[in-house]
Amino acid sequence: MTRVYLDHNATTPLRAPARDAMVAAMDVVGNPSSVHAEGRAAKMLVEAARAQVSELVGCRPQQVIFTSSATEAAALAAAQRARHGGVFAALPTEHDCLSVWSDRPLEALHDRDGQPSAQGEERLREALVALAAGSAEQGPVALVAISAANSETGIMQPEARVVGSANAVGGDRPMPAYSTVCDITQMAGKMPVVYDDVTPSYAILSAHKLGGPKGVGALINFTADDPEPLLRGGGQEMNRRSGTENVIGIAGFGAAAEAASRDVASGRWEEVAQFRNILEKTIAAASPETIFVGNGATRLPNTSCMVTPGWKGETQVMQMDLGGFAISAGSACSSGKVKASKVLGAMGYSEAQAASAIRVSLGLETTQDEVMRFAERWIAQYEKHAKRAA
Amino acid sequence: MTRVYLDHNATTPLRAPARDAMVAAMDVVGNPSSVHAEGRAAKMLVEAARAQVSELVGCRPQQVIFTSSATEAAALAAAQRARHGGVFAALPTEHDCLSVWSDRPLEALHDRDGQPSAQGEERLREALVALAAGSAEQGPVALVAISAANSETGIMQPEARVVGSANAVGGDRPMPAYSTVCDITQMAGKMPVVYDDVTPSYAILSAHKLGGPKGVGALINFTADDPEPLLRGGGQEMNRRSGTENVIGIAGFGAAAEAASRDVASGRWEEVAQFRNILEKTIAAASPETIFVGNGATRLPNTSCMVTPGWKGETQVMQMDLGGFAISAGSACSSGKVKASKVLGAMGYSEAQAASAIRVSLGLETTQDEVMRFAERWIAQYEKHAKRAA
Repeated sequence: MTRVYLDHNATTPLRAPARDAMVAAMDVVGNPSSVHAEGRAAKMLVEAARAQVSELVGCRPQQVIFTSSATEAAALAAAQRARHGGVFAALPTEHDCLSVWSDRPLEALHDRDGQPSAQGEERLREALVALAAGSAEQGPVALVAISAANSETGIMQPEARVVGSANAVGGDRPMPAYSTVCDITQMAGKMPVVYDDVTPSYAILSAHKLGGPKGVGALINFTADDPEPLLRGGGQEMNRRSGTENVIGIAGFGAAAEAASRDVASGRWEEVAQFRNILEKTIAAASPETIFVGNGATRLPNTSCMVTPGWKGETQVMQMDLGGFAISAGSACSSGKVKASKVLGAMGYSEAQAASAIRVSLGLETTQDEVMRFAERWIAQYEKHAKRAA
Repeated sequence: MTRVYLDHNATTPLRAPARDAMVAAMDVVGNPSSVHAEGRAAKMLVEAARAQVSELVGCRPQQVIFTSSATEAAALAAAQRARHGGVFAALPTEHDCLSVWSDRPLEALHDRDGQPSAQGEERLREALVALAAGSAEQGPVALVAISAANSETGIMQPEARVVGSANAVGGDRPMPAYSTVCDITQMAGKMPVVYDDVTPSYAILSAHKLGGPKGVGALINFTADDPEPLLRGGGQEMNRRSGTENVIGIAGFGAAAEAASRDVASGRWEEVAQFRNILEKTIAAASPETIFVGNGATRLPNTSCMVTPGWKGETQVMQMDLGGFAISAGSACSSGKVKASKVLGAMGYSEAQAASAIRVSLGLETTQDEVMRFAERWIAQYEKHAKRAA
């Protein structure tokens, strides 16, 4: 029995065009910094990929700074806090690569259903206004992290909209009240990349979540100034990020971005959403106690976060793995250690509930048959679990 | 006429085993941080490569921290200065990725011939002893960058030995007087990696200089403590460097390291050195004024740095490029801009001489015929130049 991979938010299989571009790039010998023909050929690959990525994220090519990951892009963005008031504020639902730099944690806005709560919205707005105080004189006074789509739940975070609108409050200000970092890692390649209300100062993304290789990402710099580099020396990426370019990986990123744009435009993800919804309905019918986190909110088309109280997510992942299905509990990162999701905690779920969550994330190649086989296996295991628990 | 690539110190063609390992890794779907079978398979690739790289550099596997480049490894090493006395000192002959972090530039030791000068040695020793003052009480009080082989001249830098021996001066001290960062980027894969006198605290290297892909490097941590990470979040690389691993690139690095170790052991570079020497003799016969920098010193087997006074290196690179030969003037990095070599300046060459330097660097696949064709073309151009200059 071939295995079924349903962990696409952790990483995706390499798309065929990305693979082809990478294999072709293997024959390009030069260093993009070299002035001879071999160097120029390598440089051209990098610049072609830059144009492809810029198309996907809606920016000018020179606003794309290639990095080794979204994590490096996040660190590079966070390092700019010095020129943005010195404060970096992040929501508790942000990915660790952003929240780790936060020195002013914000409160979560959305509730258990993924909807913005009135109090949450008010509190967030107040926190933001406090951050923004004084910005009229001195420009942006804080860097605020806002991710577009949550990697664990797939919820399109309502915070992004609030941050945007609070930012626009002082309409006659010459500059936004605070700068923003938008994590589009999960959104890019699954939905059109659009920015609510205001364009962020920076966006971060990763190739391997959209069919490119692992080990390549980008910081999109929407500000007028070049960021202070984190990696220095050779002056690559127009002095914004030194280090010989990952030419093969960048070529794969570009090709994946182009293919991903095409697939988003052609509506292929609608079918994926249907399969996800069928999966949730099938499981709901067998297990009425299972909570589908945020299934009433706007979500990524491919993601289902399911909480089945009393049945540890970790156990579910292992039982499904033995049955040939790859899923996850919480975020994929952090060295194989499975922790209870801080995202669900921030949304108001209890620790026990958060520890009982799994994430099933579909890909473009996922079939209805695969989804149904997963549901069958899950339900069989669930019934065994329920019997033991009874 | 097929082109001849003689710029292997800038970057090398991908070795066949590296290519094969990368293509195989393209089918490995998982994220190394995921606990399911797909994740474990990806993790295994990374760990196999870690063992291969550790063999090449002579360390334990867990001392290898994969990065996106030697430049990132250098930044990570430099970031440790806080725990090593707060001072980072670099020789002027270091690669920019190290010297850019230096807040205490040291004087060059070697002279125009690449030999340690008596005064130079004395001055460097004094500078080091000054840096080391007080270390008896508080442990290492500075981080000193020492590169094994110079990328522009191929000279095995005598500084490394002096730094080592000065470090050992206070023989009864419990710790070395200062910590060291050794850049083995050019040495690794061309010669056995050996450390003079004392093992450095950190070593940095890059995959693409030894037949692996661009965009992967490593920091080798010989100290007992984990370095403070520069990239944070997911906790990859045992919390020493976050960001999803470049699995395909790391697999290529491992395979290239293994192949490079084999080639070093089997003496394949001796033939390369012969071709390099034939090249220098052929050119010397036609152009007695050309200086072969450090050709009396211990050098990498593949590198020739030639100064032909009055004939700009930049011009030579372009004329050779038009003739089908890829060489360089100075270091390959820094965005296509050709600057006079700071390395030659530090060795005592005039600015005009430094601006008249080219670097020819051979690879394992370079043939005697290619070398002779290069010499022929170079001599023809040289004679035209000499006629114009006369």
